[in-house]
Amino acid sequence: MAKVRVYIAASLDGFIAGPDDDLSWLPTDAAPSEDGALGFEAFMADVGAMLMGRRTYEVVRSLSDAWAYGDTPVLVATHRELESDIPTVRAVSGTMDALLDTALEAAGGRDVYVDGGGMVQAALEAGRVDELIITMVPVLLGGGVPLFGALSERREFVFKQHASLGSMVQLYATRKPAEQA
Amino acid sequence: MAKVRVYIAASLDGFIAGPDDDLSWLPTDAAPSEDGALGFEAFMADVGAMLMGRRTYEVVRSLSDAWAYGDTPVLVATHRELESDIPTVRAVSGTMDALLDTALEAAGGRDVYVDGGGMVQAALEAGRVDELIITMVPVLLGGGVPLFGALSERREFVFKQHASLGSMVQLYATRKPAEQA
Repeated sequence: MAKVRVYIAASLDGFIAGPDDDLSWLPTDAAPSEDGALGFEAFMADVGAMLMGRRTYEVVRSLSDAWAYGDTPVLVATHRELESDIPTVRAVSGTMDALLDTALEAAGGRDVYVDGGGMVQAALEAGRVDELIITMVPVLLGGGVPLFGALSERREFVFKQHASLGSMVQLYATRKPAEQA
Repeated sequence: MAKVRVYIAASLDGFIAGPDDDLSWLPTDAAPSEDGALGFEAFMADVGAMLMGRRTYEVVRSLSDAWAYGDTPVLVATHRELESDIPTVRAVSGTMDALLDTALEAAGGRDVYVDGGGMVQAALEAGRVDELIITMVPVLLGGGVPLFGALSERREFVFKQHASLGSMVQLYATRKPAEQA
C-alpha cells in the first residue's frame, strides 16, 4: 500500500533551516546508510512522487543547478503560475487531501514524499502522514524555519527504528494504528 | 568533573507538557534501562543537586504527594518567598551563571540536574549545558510548554548514544568540545 512519507533533517530544537534559510549546520558526513539508517537514495527508491510547497521548491532550486530528484514527478503546491526548467515539475493546488490524492495518483502505486515545513505541517494536520523519518542534527539553532507547528489534535506515532547516520541520529516513526473498536 | 545535565522527556515536536500542563501523553511503560538507555534512577545516582524554575517545582509538587528526588538538594529559582514541605528544597535567585555555580557547590562534586523548560533554556543560552539527555515520545502534541526557545547563537552537541526506553527513544548528546586554536 502506497504511503505518505516525510524524510527530513532537523535540528534538535526542531528547525529545518536556520535564520535566513541557513543550511550550513547540516552535516555533510552522512554515509549513505550505517547500522540500519535509511539513506536518501534507498528512501527515494520507493518514492513515486513528491509534494512540496512553493517556498521549498524555490529554496531547493536555488541551492544548486543539479536536480536531486531525477525523474520523480514533483508536485509544487502553489496558486501562482510556475515556470520550471525541470520537466518533471508541475504546479498543483487544492485542499491538502486533494493534493495528497493527486500525488498518490502521480506516484502510480509507490510512495509520496512530502517535503518542506509547510507541506509537512499541513499533511500532519490532515492526519495523512504514514511515516516520519527525521534525521536529527545535534545542534540547537534557536530560530529559523520550524518543522512542526500547531495541530488541532495530537498525532500519535510508534518508533520503528533509530539509527546513526554520520554524526546524526535518524528517528523512524510510523503512524500509530487506530485503536480497535 | 561535575557536569550540568538535562534529563527530560519531550514530544517529537519539542513539548515537555501539552496544553494545560497535560502530561497524559507520557508513556508509563519505560523499563528502567534497555539496550543502554539511561534510566532515571541511574541518572540520579550521579546527581548531587537539582535546579528548577518555580513553575516546574509547583507542577512537580502538585502531581503527587510523593517526592521523586529523595535527599537530593533541590534549588528552586524564584524571586518570591518559597515555603516547601520538603526539607531539601530551597529558594535561590541570581543570574543563570550564579544559579548554576550555587547548584554545583550544593552538588558537592557531583552533577547538577537542570529541569523544566525555562531553566533548561536559560542554561542553554548561558552555554552551560554539558549533557542533553532527551527521551523522545513518538507523539506530536501541536502545542503546550516548549522545551527549547530562542538562542542568541547556535549550541553544538555531539550524539553519544541513542537507545530505546520502552516505546520512546532516548537521545544522549554531549556538548561539542571547543575547536582547538
